[in-house]
Amino acid sequence: MGARNAFYAQSGGVSAVINASACAVLQTARQYTAQIGKVYAGRDGIIGALSEDLIDTSLESEATIAALKHTPGGAFGSCRYKLGSLHEHRAQYERLIEVFSAHDIGFFFYNGGGDSQDTAYKVSQIGAQLGYPIVCVGIPKTIDNDLPITDCSPGFGSVAKYVATSIREAAFDVTAMSRTSTKVFVLEVMGRHAGWATAACALAAEREGEAPHILLLPEVLFDEARFLSKVQRALEQYGQCVIAVAEGVKGPDGEFLSASGSKDAFGHAQLGGAAPLITNLIGAKLGSKCHWAVPDYLQRSARHIASETDLQHAYAVGRAAVEFAIAGRSGVMPAIRRLSDEPYCWDIIEAPLSDVANQEKLLPPDFISADGFGITAAARRYLAPLIVGEAYPPFRNGLPDYVKLRNVAVPKRLNTEFAL
Amino acid sequence: MGARNAFYAQSGGVSAVINASACAVLQTARQYTAQIGKVYAGRDGIIGALSEDLIDTSLESEATIAALKHTPGGAFGSCRYKLGSLHEHRAQYERLIEVFSAHDIGFFFYNGGGDSQDTAYKVSQIGAQLGYPIVCVGIPKTIDNDLPITDCSPGFGSVAKYVATSIREAAFDVTAMSRTSTKVFVLEVMGRHAGWATAACALAAEREGEAPHILLLPEVLFDEARFLSKVQRALEQYGQCVIAVAEGVKGPDGEFLSASGSKDAFGHAQLGGAAPLITNLIGAKLGSKCHWAVPDYLQRSARHIASETDLQHAYAVGRAAVEFAIAGRSGVMPAIRRLSDEPYCWDIIEAPLSDVANQEKLLPPDFISADGFGITAAARRYLAPLIVGEAYPPFRNGLPDYVKLRNVAVPKRLNTEFAL
Repeated sequence: MGARNAFYAQSGGVSAVINASACAVLQTARQYTAQIGKVYAGRDGIIGALSEDLIDTSLESEATIAALKHTPGGAFGSCRYKLGSLHEHRAQYERLIEVFSAHDIGFFFYNGGGDSQDTAYKVSQIGAQLGYPIVCVGIPKTIDNDLPITDCSPGFGSVAKYVATSIREAAFDVTAMSRTSTKVFVLEVMGRHAGWATAACALAAEREGEAPHILLLPEVLFDEARFLSKVQRALEQYGQCVIAVAEGVKGPDGEFLSASGSKDAFGHAQLGGAAPLITNLIGAKLGSKCHWAVPDYLQRSARHIASETDLQHAYAVGRAAVEFAIAGRSGVMPAIRRLSDEPYCWDIIEAPLSDVANQEKLLPPDFISADGFGITAAARRYLAPLIVGEAYPPFRNGLPDYVKLRNVAVPKRLNTEFAL
Repeated sequence: MGARNAFYAQSGGVSAVINASACAVLQTARQYTAQIGKVYAGRDGIIGALSEDLIDTSLESEATIAALKHTPGGAFGSCRYKLGSLHEHRAQYERLIEVFSAHDIGFFFYNGGGDSQDTAYKVSQIGAQLGYPIVCVGIPKTIDNDLPITDCSPGFGSVAKYVATSIREAAFDVTAMSRTSTKVFVLEVMGRHAGWATAACALAAEREGEAPHILLLPEVLFDEARFLSKVQRALEQYGQCVIAVAEGVKGPDGEFLSASGSKDAFGHAQLGGAAPLITNLIGAKLGSKCHWAVPDYLQRSARHIASETDLQHAYAVGRAAVEFAIAGRSGVMPAIRRLSDEPYCWDIIEAPLSDVANQEKLLPPDFISADGFGITAAARRYLAPLIVGEAYPPFRNGLPDYVKLRNVAVPKRLNTEFAL
């Protein structure tokens, strides 16, 4: 059989390094010309496949592809769009086969988190169940670090480095100001259910008394009295209190503290605002002057302070995905396996998509300190290597020089529309 | 006359590079041992002088002093404390003389913004009016960039680089997500009265259509209808709208927009936040999915992405302050003078503190675009050189390796308390 084309797409919230995985897929595919023809990227994830909106990546230069490695965001567009089940939404899968068939697509690479791996898993079933021959490989990506099997998820290490760096820097500010001004600083960190990024803030504290002094994790229900007493103690001991709060911190009733009522396309509650909430509480109950920060997208797109380790992971899973596909492995996802903490060693193993899809890996109990406001030594050992190394992008005129692709559409071969 | 000791202190909100000015003062003073004995730093600004809480910087090693150059925050503590007038608060000045005299302080260096230069100016008057011989030199520092005479203020360039980098990165995220998710992103930037930092966000847009699409400056009163129509137009043209809003944006009545009376889930009055406010407005009126970020202290302490140009300015004004003092110049402040935009050339001149104190330099009208939502080419020429160059701190274990001083107190020689 001659070379067949490949489909690659990005899905879910993007990150500082998902384009490094894209870079790896494209560079590696170009090494297997006997097996892989062109790589067509889906414009805006799986939507690009359903709407036959494909991007011809062969029209991008080698230099442009290489520059993806230092460019944040999702170069081909991402989406929050989940395929239905094969049984109930058979039309979606028949449409995919129609498009794939029209463009001779024999390889499917889907780069994303838990929901996206569910999509990859479902697409992998069309071979056996609908008779369309295709090799499907998921590529892990999530700043939430909540994918199972893989030791960590590309995208997370860079967020971890950003938040730990940021809280350390802000703490230097608070230390300078605390005598006559701000004594409490609250940093809101992404993470609806899993507290990995919030936990990573603790890496900034290397000695007793260093910030952050308190973590509010989504895995630990918020207890106002215990929290305020902890804040009070930090103020007495250190003259300041620096707090990292997960956007998804939950009250005693298990509901998001900051529940705004609005929902995203997946039906998830849309959060944001835990930091102002916590800050107001402290101001009202303890009377201290507080400041808060919500970096939001800044944390997951901060390619300028990406972790070199994370970047290497992101590239490695992209390359491994193509190698798995060439080896005929389908329905799998490259996963990172940790071989040792120190020196940090890792390799890539194969995880079945059936075991990855729709799983959510929370902070294990032995990573959370006894009082629930911090992390254990085990958590620190796990987190520490993931932020190591700086992978600065090139700068031009004082700003990071990121690339924008041409993203030229592949001429359509079908005359049909498909309602999303 | 033999060598006399010097007093140095940091005042007002700190920055990513105020410690570079401190580094310059200490390193330069160590070159003039015939004139300057020890440099005593005020713990928490002028408060350290009033309370005779002085830090003996001679006990810090050369390496530690050098490391100040890459450490954010205010190494000796800062304060928000303004001296009263010499006539009405004579006791404050007599106390200063008492402390200075007890420690043979003949040089006074005060590092801060407009309020702090007012303090420096007042202290400079005690020579003539109260007969205590002292050489007083102000050292400019403010992320707000609102000091007069000096072409720019150390601290600003690094904030400018941070916010322009951050909004560019977040825009890559929005671009990837905008088809099925977030279409509007709002970044809140520091600046209560002057829009310099908000204006600097516009440096991220180098080509038509690039983010940010709208600036909301404190110099331009907010007009809801015009603003929403501008957002709508950006959404139509670009499929997204990225906005930088100054924390101090004001409504048609001239009051801060963010001084709203809303309450949070705990029933407490919600702290200001121009970005959430603007975001809610867009969500309610246009129905677009929005995200917002408030980096707060992160922007002014982000030493990891400091501007090399800004760092050079900060060091140069610290060095010049000592050289002015050695030359017997008192009641002055080193100011940065721009000699040319491109190539960017500058030198240091002398500004009288009487002309600097309590002035506030806003964005000039010819820097604001005709519609009020952007900047002009003149503004871009002014801002562009200030963010050029990366001045990365050293990293250890994946995090910036910042220094903490020993800050050993000078033994007190007075037995008197002073009520602040």
